[in-house]
Amino acid sequence: MNETIKLLKNHRSVRLFEDRALSAEQIEAIVTSAQSAATSSFIQAYSIIGVTDQQKKDKLAELTGGQEYVAKNGHFFVFCADLFRHELIGEIEGKEVLPSLESTEKFMVALIDTALAAQNAAIAAESMGLGICYIGGIRNNLEAVTELLKTPKRVIPLFGMTIGYPMQENDKKQRLPYEHVYHENEYNQDLASYKEQLSIYDEFISDYYNKRTNGKRSDTWSSQMAQMLEKQTRMYMKEFVNKQGFDLK
Amino acid sequence: MNETIKLLKNHRSVRLFEDRALSAEQIEAIVTSAQSAATSSFIQAYSIIGVTDQQKKDKLAELTGGQEYVAKNGHFFVFCADLFRHELIGEIEGKEVLPSLESTEKFMVALIDTALAAQNAAIAAESMGLGICYIGGIRNNLEAVTELLKTPKRVIPLFGMTIGYPMQENDKKQRLPYEHVYHENEYNQDLASYKEQLSIYDEFISDYYNKRTNGKRSDTWSSQMAQMLEKQTRMYMKEFVNKQGFDLK
Repeated sequence: MNETIKLLKNHRSVRLFEDRALSAEQIEAIVTSAQSAATSSFIQAYSIIGVTDQQKKDKLAELTGGQEYVAKNGHFFVFCADLFRHELIGEIEGKEVLPSLESTEKFMVALIDTALAAQNAAIAAESMGLGICYIGGIRNNLEAVTELLKTPKRVIPLFGMTIGYPMQENDKKQRLPYEHVYHENEYNQDLASYKEQLSIYDEFISDYYNKRTNGKRSDTWSSQMAQMLEKQTRMYMKEFVNKQGFDLK
Repeated sequence: MNETIKLLKNHRSVRLFEDRALSAEQIEAIVTSAQSAATSSFIQAYSIIGVTDQQKKDKLAELTGGQEYVAKNGHFFVFCADLFRHELIGEIEGKEVLPSLESTEKFMVALIDTALAAQNAAIAAESMGLGICYIGGIRNNLEAVTELLKTPKRVIPLFGMTIGYPMQENDKKQRLPYEHVYHENEYNQDLASYKEQLSIYDEFISDYYNKRTNGKRSDTWSSQMAQMLEKQTRMYMKEFVNKQGFDLK
């Protein structure tokens, strides 16, 4: 196993950072690594906003539901799906691009492009000994986030990323069984084995929590997922996304 | 610049591979690296299908518009957004999860999760000296792709990835200017500078094509984008996505 694969496999979230800002060189290495990711038909449908203003960081921490590490870290990045420049180009070049920009397909392209870039940023940071945590919590209130970051139409802040010098690392959490996630030639058609894989995983995760909390917690992954998914969260998203010019047509 | 960052920055697509299959160890390293990526609230909303059956690969090459490297490579992966297991868990646990699974928010979560995993796969492969190319072309005809790979409801094949021993690498394409993509504290509010950045980039890209083709091609990035976006492609996507149980509510 080479060093890069070791690094990838060793990923864990970091939510407690030293009070030490990233250097300009580190930020540049992270952003240029992000930009080097593959992009669908060269579309480059994203922007990255680095937040250094402490008042804005405090506000973002509040908006994400009081996640302190959004305010306290080495640097806070916001990754945005971005078709704003493409609308502008349509105007400048005199081409009718709106039906395309407003399609579900281009929404998907922009999300995928942004996520590929972000994952490169995460790996670049981790390769420098920094820790990271994705912050989906900025989607709790995107109206307020877009106002704070002054993002124009056809831009959606998708998630944040806290980066910094780790003071404490989370445990690495075991993922779903390999054979449950990886299928050969066709999706597993045998529902019995599929369910069995989930059971085995549930037992594993339950044991893990049990040991980690000295018996105080022993929920399975399935129960955790069912409980999370029963709650209907961020149900305003469709309306917001539409308003931002992603019509999902 | 460390080795991992060098690797990230050196990414380029590979579309011509030796006739040499990946080993089981390589496939495992790629898939487990993918699984190690961050996942929103531990949801793990994706599956990966490895296609080894040559007939299926030929069919996929045809469906992507005759991309030969989809048929000829070391391994072909299809990355799928997947909430099928979560629906099953809802049933088993007796929780009403459908409104959540059918929300625009969870569609976004599934897409982002899948893309983060895929980018880890790409980097793992490249770290082993292999080349990769994302294949968005599988979205040309997802009806046929889902039939071929027998994916159930609440699963969407998002993109493929050809991996293999490179015989020829594409040029590395210069990305948008750093300051155009990276904003500090707020999105660039100065439209004049924003447009100027695009002009500089356009000139750069035009020069690049000019040199590379001995003057046969000199289009700008803007003209390339406008031309691409004028075409309305994959406009069936909303209907398909809805049919698969991603209602975008």
